[in-house]
Amino acid sequence: MIKAGIVGGTGYTGAELLRLLVSHPQVEITTVTSRAESGKRLDMLFPNLRGHVDLQFSNPEVEQLTSCDVIFFATPHGVAQSMMKPLIDRGARVIDLSADFRLKNIAVWEHWYQQVHACPELVERAVYGLPEIYREQIKSAQLVACPGCYPTSVQLGLMPLLKAGWIHTKDIIVNAASGISGAGRNAKTGLLLAENYDSFKAYGVSGHRHLPEIEQGLNAVNADSAEAVGVTFVPHLLPMVRGIHSTIYARANTQCDDVQALYEKAYQDEPFVDVLPRGTYPETRSVKGTNLCRVSIERPQDGELLVLMSVIDNLAKGASAQALQCMNLMFDLPENSALTHAALLP
Amino acid sequence: MIKAGIVGGTGYTGAELLRLLVSHPQVEITTVTSRAESGKRLDMLFPNLRGHVDLQFSNPEVEQLTSCDVIFFATPHGVAQSMMKPLIDRGARVIDLSADFRLKNIAVWEHWYQQVHACPELVERAVYGLPEIYREQIKSAQLVACPGCYPTSVQLGLMPLLKAGWIHTKDIIVNAASGISGAGRNAKTGLLLAENYDSFKAYGVSGHRHLPEIEQGLNAVNADSAEAVGVTFVPHLLPMVRGIHSTIYARANTQCDDVQALYEKAYQDEPFVDVLPRGTYPETRSVKGTNLCRVSIERPQDGELLVLMSVIDNLAKGASAQALQCMNLMFDLPENSALTHAALLP
Amino acid sequence: MIKAGIVGGTGYTGAELLRLLVSHPQVEITTVTSRAESGKRLDMLFPNLRGHVDLQFSNPEVEQLTSCDVIFFATPHGVAQSMMKPLIDRGARVIDLSADFRLKNIAVWEHWYQQVHACPELVERAVYGLPEIYREQIKSAQLVACPGCYPTSVQLGLMPLLKAGWIHTKDIIVNAASGISGAGRNAKTGLLLAENYDSFKAYGVSGHRHLPEIEQGLNAVNADSAEAVGVTFVPHLLPMVRGIHSTIYARANTQCDDVQALYEKAYQDEPFVDVLPRGTYPETRSVKGTNLCRVSIERPQDGELLVLMSVIDNLAKGASAQALQCMNLMFDLPENSALTHAALLP
Amino acid sequence: MIKAGIVGGTGYTGAELLRLLVSHPQVEITTVTSRAESGKRLDMLFPNLRGHVDLQFSNPEVEQLTSCDVIFFATPHGVAQSMMKPLIDRGARVIDLSADFRLKNIAVWEHWYQQVHACPELVERAVYGLPEIYREQIKSAQLVACPGCYPTSVQLGLMPLLKAGWIHTKDIIVNAASGISGAGRNAKTGLLLAENYDSFKAYGVSGHRHLPEIEQGLNAVNADSAEAVGVTFVPHLLPMVRGIHSTIYARANTQCDDVQALYEKAYQDEPFVDVLPRGTYPETRSVKGTNLCRVSIERPQDGELLVLMSVIDNLAKGASAQALQCMNLMFDLPENSALTHAALLP
Repeated sequence: MIKAGIVGGTGYTGAELLRLLVSHPQVEITTVTSRAESGKRLDMLFPNLRGHVDLQFSNPEVEQLTSCDVIFFATPHGVAQSMMKPLIDRGARVIDLSADFRLKNIAVWEHWYQQVHACPELVERAVYGLPEIYREQIKSAQLVACPGCYPTSVQLGLMPLLKAGWIHTKDIIVNAASGISGAGRNAKTGLLLAENYDSFKAYGVSGHRHLPEIEQGLNAVNADSAEAVGVTFVPHLLPMVRGIHSTIYARANTQCDDVQALYEKAYQDEPFVDVLPRGTYPETRSVKGTNLCRVSIERPQDGELLVLMSVIDNLAKGASAQALQCMNLMFDLPENSALTHAALLP
Repeated sequence: MIKAGIVGGTGYTGAELLRLLVSHPQVEITTVTSRAESGKRLDMLFPNLRGHVDLQFSNPEVEQLTSCDVIFFATPHGVAQSMMKPLIDRGARVIDLSADFRLKNIAVWEHWYQQVHACPELVERAVYGLPEIYREQIKSAQLVACPGCYPTSVQLGLMPLLKAGWIHTKDIIVNAASGISGAGRNAKTGLLLAENYDSFKAYGVSGHRHLPEIEQGLNAVNADSAEAVGVTFVPHLLPMVRGIHSTIYARANTQCDDVQALYEKAYQDEPFVDVLPRGTYPETRSVKGTNLCRVSIERPQDGELLVLMSVIDNLAKGASAQALQCMNLMFDLPENSALTHAALLP
Repeated sequence: MIKAGIVGGTGYTGAELLRLLVSHPQVEITTVTSRAESGKRLDMLFPNLRGHVDLQFSNPEVEQLTSCDVIFFATPHGVAQSMMKPLIDRGARVIDLSADFRLKNIAVWEHWYQQVHACPELVERAVYGLPEIYREQIKSAQLVACPGCYPTSVQLGLMPLLKAGWIHTKDIIVNAASGISGAGRNAKTGLLLAENYDSFKAYGVSGHRHLPEIEQGLNAVNADSAEAVGVTFVPHLLPMVRGIHSTIYARANTQCDDVQALYEKAYQDEPFVDVLPRGTYPETRSVKGTNLCRVSIERPQDGELLVLMSVIDNLAKGASAQALQCMNLMFDLPENSALTHAALLP
Repeated sequence: MIKAGIVGGTGYTGAELLRLLVSHPQVEITTVTSRAESGKRLDMLFPNLRGHVDLQFSNPEVEQLTSCDVIFFATPHGVAQSMMKPLIDRGARVIDLSADFRLKNIAVWEHWYQQVHACPELVERAVYGLPEIYREQIKSAQLVACPGCYPTSVQLGLMPLLKAGWIHTKDIIVNAASGISGAGRNAKTGLLLAENYDSFKAYGVSGHRHLPEIEQGLNAVNADSAEAVGVTFVPHLLPMVRGIHSTIYARANTQCDDVQALYEKAYQDEPFVDVLPRGTYPETRSVKGTNLCRVSIERPQDGELLVLMSVIDNLAKGASAQALQCMNLMFDLPENSALTHAALLP
């Protein structure tokens, strides 16, 4: 059995990780930390876990954490980088769900997160946890930086086109919408049911922290070395809990051919990316609670503009299920262990 | 592998059964019937099944159905009874999720369902599919009549008190609320999102079909043979998809003692009934997608009145997951096969 | 023009009061206070008010408030009583939406609100702001204590039966459900959309602060002087914003006759209580944003038990619209001024 | 009093029109037609109207309709054009909320609506009911063709830029999302609460009927005569009832200057278009039930791309309230009669 520890288990990515791990046949959860809830039973905070896990939150301690085979960080940004050095030095294998080690350019990270990076020396060693691109590196990684939710949906939605070099890359538009769980389990007025139910809005239009991650990720697979990827990213907040829908607009160049065929081929061996049949579009509910990304391609009126639709569950493929997919790879388990279930519908 | 067939797979109980069965390690789905959708792929109707099942709906045929080891009926009332005789005669084992074989009193059935019963001769042989009461009979049953959703939540909520003989039984009040999936996947104006979102109402107050089933079930476990069970049942419609919450009011008699202890003892070996700690109350989301019933007991101001709260997922423990629990019992499989996962939360 | 001031305008009852007052032809809003948001424009907090009101929140000051013709308190309990004495002494007319002056028995108030009452000397002078019972007293009141949301729905639902003396009064059951706006605009984890969407639960089952107010109100209209009213009150939380649905169970006594006729007669001249036709039940959406209470009566299976259904909008008839109805009465305006609009539907 | 008739009063635009008209001081509703519901009281279908209107649905008859001062059509496309000729010939003034007379190019109409136009001779005389552009023509119109919901939000969102000639017009992208009431009160499986709650998806991506109307409307105000407007329009379905949010992407040309100032100036005298302060974005709830359009402009990273956000209530400014605004203009009433109330919030 793999002994797993979770640092910061009181947020929604922590809760989702716990939900998935309790069904994993090769994993035993040994430690779940939270300074604020130390001593409280996990299932008092998350009643769905009653009967599934018999643990209390504890204070995070290096000694205890390094006795785990794998440590997940499900913490706000800034925490993982402040604790990472001694863990890595002692040989721990770490999967960080936060933003701390995603951006390779430390100055960019510091600009968007408005703080000094506490552990820049480990950034280069961190492997970006998107298995559809970095599967081999993840297998042997000591430190995995899991992608953000929006970036996951956008990169899986655009990768085949970028690799093929079939689109103009400098003026991509990503119009995305997310369920409110993406904003975390935080006691803020702006996240109340009474403030968000039966309403919809854009936010972060002037700039969102996921933009540099999206651009970094897209540039990494861009076949057109002459032209950097440029993205306009506009996120919106949905009056619901789980799900991201990215509607991506890209202009085809003259090389562009049968995009549907391109996508079906690109993802034919990927267990967690599903290309929908021509003319059908994905619903976020079709991936709820799963590690799946479902993608559709449309070319309205056979014009220059391609419209890509990509849906994921922001807490699952956008966070905790993808982290578990990475863990499966790191420990040489079947990649889909504990990730095989169909979405709840209706 | 157990070959399973589903008659009427286009409704929500059918969809939920499919979702659960595709993860069952000992089951192979061989036939799913629908006259209306015959020839259509299942995953065109239920996009969550893409990648999980590679079947089309077919017309129901006795020959094909009897080649299955188990046949589920997920049909509106009236259908199962019209098809049942030849299936039973040929030795098929059948699990009926509809109301057709639940009521032992055929006159009562005909009164509430306003039609002549098409197969009264099999009613007596049908075993009521509530494992917490009829586990042994279910194991050897040829025909199982699965309980209705409201009746499941009420019977599990009240059984220990009735068995103990601690309450007055003739004036029980059940104030229940259900998510809208309980009304089925029917194209009716009254079920539209725009008609139900952000609203709440009672319905069926003058009489609801689940009332005679509730009374039959409660009488069967009532320790007080002198006084029949009498129930006032008022269902309400919640602006959400899944979940039943029954708030049950019963008057303690003089025998009544520590109810919390009674319930904890009564359900200590039941894998799917969870008695919450004193002073905590169940949320429907804590059982979403699972076969669990969670129960709480309160006695406000230490008065005569007991308040029982019982939550289930109407499509799961209230229908398809419970049907699967019965199947596991009938085929001598672990009772919790394919039913072990934690509820999705948030 | 009546000059109106609002103390504590940042919560939902304050917001609702503002929404209604900006459409009142005889009212000018002159002051809206908030210590926390002092200096901020009202329409930055409540975007629906853009173009309707050109004010900023200010600090509460006695001088400024007493220049108003009417002062509304839309504050948490404890605030109004701490500020009331000097206002009343200077002759201000005050409408308090909080719980501070509702309960005549100060010991009971102090027990349920767990603090010492800061202004017991004014409690007796406060008129309970339920116009259907206290219309005349309200007209000349200096201090009006507006009813709570649940108590409004319950009192209007039960009053005719209690006045007629047609029910047993000691074992009434109130099973009520409220939209989440009733819990206020507070930054608490338990009120997040992600914690409440698609879920339903009971709360406060062992005891809720509205219980003594309900009992006080019902006793005041109870025709049966020999038997005090006894209520079991179980509130539930709905996954929606506005609306209260009270399902009330009362046992008819031998005097009980045609309840539908009784209710139609009792409320025939009441502008804001609507008795629905026999056999139809109220939906909360049918009163959203209005000052209406809609009531239905059912007697299932012609038994002893009466089931009353009463719906209001908790922020409107349950708080701010009823406060405005009181103001109209106090200032000899048409009782329905600014309260005539139909509910938004769908 | 203006006598108003409504043809087809059983859908959501009919219901919203009724809700608004019952509060209009100069309007008396005399006829509401529905073949399907003839003889049924309006308030049995729409419980919010109880106490506000005492009418039954009747069969549509020319004689009866022409006795009205104004006739509204709130019918599916095809109906108004089939009944229009005799009404217009007899001098009736008609406001059509359907798509029948919106498109000037009859071939385009017939292509998108897949039927032969039944009354092409009146198309040219119909005035497009967008007061912000056609106010003067509406005043004297006999037949007004009210804009669609999406087209209203897009035209108001883009008009100032197009008039100024500050954007490239051939590659505009409109990413829009609508509440489900936009799909009407139709008994379709795809509109059920259980099919849409907690989910989000795009639809009509390959082509939507509102596209030609959007392009016709934008071309009419386009200052750049050399380049026709070209739009990619992708609508999405929100899990809520009311509200449209259009996120519009347009590339600035070299003339482009201070867009915020341009919009504030363009709409400074418009009673129903609100330009939000820099850096703030509109929420759909802020216009719920009102005739308002709220607009924001952002220019992310000071790049070439402008992002415009435009919100309306699809049933109000997107249909019935705008129709009422047109009626006010046609009958020389204050333009905002019965349209002055603040949105319900929360």
